[in-house]
Amino acid sequence: MVQAARVSYGIGTKQVQSDEGLIRYLLRHRHTTPFEMCEIQYHVKLPIFVARQWIRHRTANVNEYSGRYSILDREFYVPAPEHLAAQSVSNRQGRGSVLEGTEAAEALETLKRDAGRAYDDYERLLNERADGSVIDPQRQGLARELARMNLPVNFYTQWYWKVDLHNLLHFLMLRADAHAQYEIRVYAEAMLETVKRWVPLTYQAFADYVQGGLELSAQGLSVVKRLLAGEAVTQETSGMSPREWRELMASLGRPAS
Amino acid sequence: MVQAARVSYGIGTKQVQSDEGLIRYLLRHRHTTPFEMCEIQYHVKLPIFVARQWIRHRTANVNEYSGRYSILDREFYVPAPEHLAAQSVSNRQGRGSVLEGTEAAEALETLKRDAGRAYDDYERLLNERADGSVIDPQRQGLARELARMNLPVNFYTQWYWKVDLHNLLHFLMLRADAHAQYEIRVYAEAMLETVKRWVPLTYQAFADYVQGGLELSAQGLSVVKRLLAGEAVTQETSGMSPREWRELMASLGRPAS
Amino acid sequence: MVQAARVSYGIGTKQVQSDEGLIRYLLRHRHTTPFEMCEIQYHVKLPIFVARQWIRHRTANVNEYSGRYSILDREFYVPAPEHLAAQSVSNRQGRGSVLEGTEAAEALETLKRDAGRAYDDYERLLNERADGSVIDPQRQGLARELARMNLPVNFYTQWYWKVDLHNLLHFLMLRADAHAQYEIRVYAEAMLETVKRWVPLTYQAFADYVQGGLELSAQGLSVVKRLLAGEAVTQETSGMSPREWRELMASLGRPAS
Amino acid sequence: MVQAARVSYGIGTKQVQSDEGLIRYLLRHRHTTPFEMCEIQYHVKLPIFVARQWIRHRTANVNEYSGRYSILDREFYVPAPEHLAAQSVSNRQGRGSVLEGTEAAEALETLKRDAGRAYDDYERLLNERADGSVIDPQRQGLARELARMNLPVNFYTQWYWKVDLHNLLHFLMLRADAHAQYEIRVYAEAMLETVKRWVPLTYQAFADYVQGGLELSAQGLSVVKRLLAGEAVTQETSGMSPREWRELMASLGRPAS
Repeated sequence: MVQAARVSYGIGTKQVQSDEGLIRYLLRHRHTTPFEMCEIQYHVKLPIFVARQWIRHRTANVNEYSGRYSILDREFYVPAPEHLAAQSVSNRQGRGSVLEGTEAAEALETLKRDAGRAYDDYERLLNERADGSVIDPQRQGLARELARMNLPVNFYTQWYWKVDLHNLLHFLMLRADAHAQYEIRVYAEAMLETVKRWVPLTYQAFADYVQGGLELSAQGLSVVKRLLAGEAVTQETSGMSPREWRELMASLGRPAS
Repeated sequence: MVQAARVSYGIGTKQVQSDEGLIRYLLRHRHTTPFEMCEIQYHVKLPIFVARQWIRHRTANVNEYSGRYSILDREFYVPAPEHLAAQSVSNRQGRGSVLEGTEAAEALETLKRDAGRAYDDYERLLNERADGSVIDPQRQGLARELARMNLPVNFYTQWYWKVDLHNLLHFLMLRADAHAQYEIRVYAEAMLETVKRWVPLTYQAFADYVQGGLELSAQGLSVVKRLLAGEAVTQETSGMSPREWRELMASLGRPAS
Repeated sequence: MVQAARVSYGIGTKQVQSDEGLIRYLLRHRHTTPFEMCEIQYHVKLPIFVARQWIRHRTANVNEYSGRYSILDREFYVPAPEHLAAQSVSNRQGRGSVLEGTEAAEALETLKRDAGRAYDDYERLLNERADGSVIDPQRQGLARELARMNLPVNFYTQWYWKVDLHNLLHFLMLRADAHAQYEIRVYAEAMLETVKRWVPLTYQAFADYVQGGLELSAQGLSVVKRLLAGEAVTQETSGMSPREWRELMASLGRPAS
Repeated sequence: MVQAARVSYGIGTKQVQSDEGLIRYLLRHRHTTPFEMCEIQYHVKLPIFVARQWIRHRTANVNEYSGRYSILDREFYVPAPEHLAAQSVSNRQGRGSVLEGTEAAEALETLKRDAGRAYDDYERLLNERADGSVIDPQRQGLARELARMNLPVNFYTQWYWKVDLHNLLHFLMLRADAHAQYEIRVYAEAMLETVKRWVPLTYQAFADYVQGGLELSAQGLSVVKRLLAGEAVTQETSGMSPREWRELMASLGRPAS
């Protein structure tokens, strides 16, 4: 990465900046192409509904296990009790409080029972088990590419996913974020750890300039300037929507009103 | 497209070739960039397992219905009886003969029953129906992004899919092909009809140079030359594998032996 | 764009937010895919050295005038006197003060003379003029694809450039920025005006959240919080490099020391 | 690549096919994603006009030497006498016979003289030489990003170019082809040799299925079938244009009439 960045500067500038300084400079100023020079490949097992979010990141290379060729394993995801959350009442896309008592127990039971039943019927449709044994020799079995349609999206698939460092950081920025669904965020967080071990200087720059930073809008910047000048700004005088105002105050560690 | 192609030639060449001749020339010689100048957008309703194949075509723009925000409808795909095929015995990825009798009836019954049951439980997990009515006011309901994991991949999703003509033709070459799974091929065939109405000259060139043509390998070309010279070539003397030989003979309308 | 965004929310949410509110929400939260649903095509005439920066934006469709097929026109760029800048002494990549007097006059004279001479020799190499007339009937003329190598990179080329709105905004963020070379920035600024007329709500959101905003690093955010708490922070106690400190103070409208 | 391809097939199929058979199968059936799993990086020095063709291949990662930061070297390309070709009279994009005698000598002389003069003036504009020495201490020197506009496109630039194997083969198919300009073809041919040493099985499959093969159109396939059936087909009865007919006959090693 550093070598590629330096081809831009020509001979003689190698001494100007340390690798660390250069990496921080590149990341801070959106000089993204040197980060494309590093590639990493992951072998991932993940629920289909997570795979469907993940695959939207197009600048990557993928080879996925094929349900047309092969029989899927009896493996499906069910949330741990502490992640069995209710629908958020304030955010159409988010989670609210954790379910408890009977409702929680029945939800878990339903998810497990339906997944198990779907897999049993998948095998019966195939007339074959994952170990290759035939169930009823008098039957033909439905084509794999058809029988798999019976499986719910919490079943696991797997793939090789290869990506360059720039696009990986973009993926992690979005998917390790608090707004990402928990089930993909845990993958992103595990991958952040691999980045930390693989390219520690880049990881630190990413933590400082992207993850730990704050994007101020024009209105937010104006509010900060007015506050620094000693003015008592309120949401009403801020030019910001109530929601943006609340988020800004939270980011600055101030009460919203 | 034609205007963009002609910027390459400069002023004065407009009279050299008709639009039709130019389009055929461009398509035949893999001058693909002018075909990128046309865009088309489709609004598609499709089963999740079809969407998972489709989304692998990365050079397109997509906005998909989100099961995190919204409740999916009770709509799922089940093959028509004539498409309820057995696994192919010769091709790990293909379909064999159509299932009949009890086995067919039971397969259809299983697919319908499991999908219906999965949706019933999806509503119970949500504690809400698609029309927004609450099932049990004493319960909270599981978050949408979690409850949806109970639905099998034959449920319908929908998206806006926007693509340029070059990448659309590439998609159609692969997905309207006989090797594509039937369930995505029917979409590709319907889209081919839209191409025919939208850009008829390009459609015809695509039919002539891509769909109706044949790619000969070096060995296949050598076989054709020897046959034209009157030589009696067999698979054994062809330098081709039995499978490639069979495919070549079929393409040339000759018996394989 | 708005229609595509709403497919994510399902039926019934149309009344929840105005188009303007939705667009601002999407842009602010990096929901970029709806912006990919709009396409625009520009026909641009630009110097080769500008085209070489521009083409680095890969997610676009391009058809360029070809010097292999056609004869280029006698058109080249020379900076206006007020843009004839010296090399910056502080920034290896930037411009310093404007040249004056003899040095300026001679620089302009050199650029014009060399470009004119290069074009005269280009015609002689071709043995043909742009109007198609032959220079010396006894000669063959060098191939166009070879003769063009004599032309400097301030000659104009032209292309059709088609891009979606998301990638256009990304281009404009980088190329309408003060760090971009002046000669590409003037194109970006002209294109910003087309965005303003084409999609005014998106333009305003872009102005508020991207162009007029400020990205605080983790260290910068910490400084702002400490300042708001009444602490007297200096560069030495800020944890920031002198350069980042200066830039932050400038953005906040405060003296650097 | 082979490991990634096999994730599609699941456990137990490893013995089914040798690596070689699998690679040939993948390449023949356009299963392109496994080839995306291999990456290679080249460090290339190349004339600007070649770089301008090369960069049109967008699915690659690039870091180029920057004329904004650094002073370019006095290095430019001039064709060897045997590549100093006239414009083709039949093909607007191609080369004809090699120039000879006075015309050749003068063309070479012109290219060298203009490039040398442009570089001399580049240094004078910069008021600096590539070794960093100042020419006239009384002058400021024009900014690097401006002075470079005086250099013709036969000057050398350099870059790191990183690409996956699938996209590299696509590049090589187009650029090692006889229709590519000679000056980029020599790079493609040198890179083909690196592919041969790096992934010999893939190289051989590429040679057999892509480079040495032939794409028959629907009309061409029909002609071949009729010829094999003993019919005497002529261009007039072929349904093909004269040009396509000539090309087909040439590919089949037959006289065109």
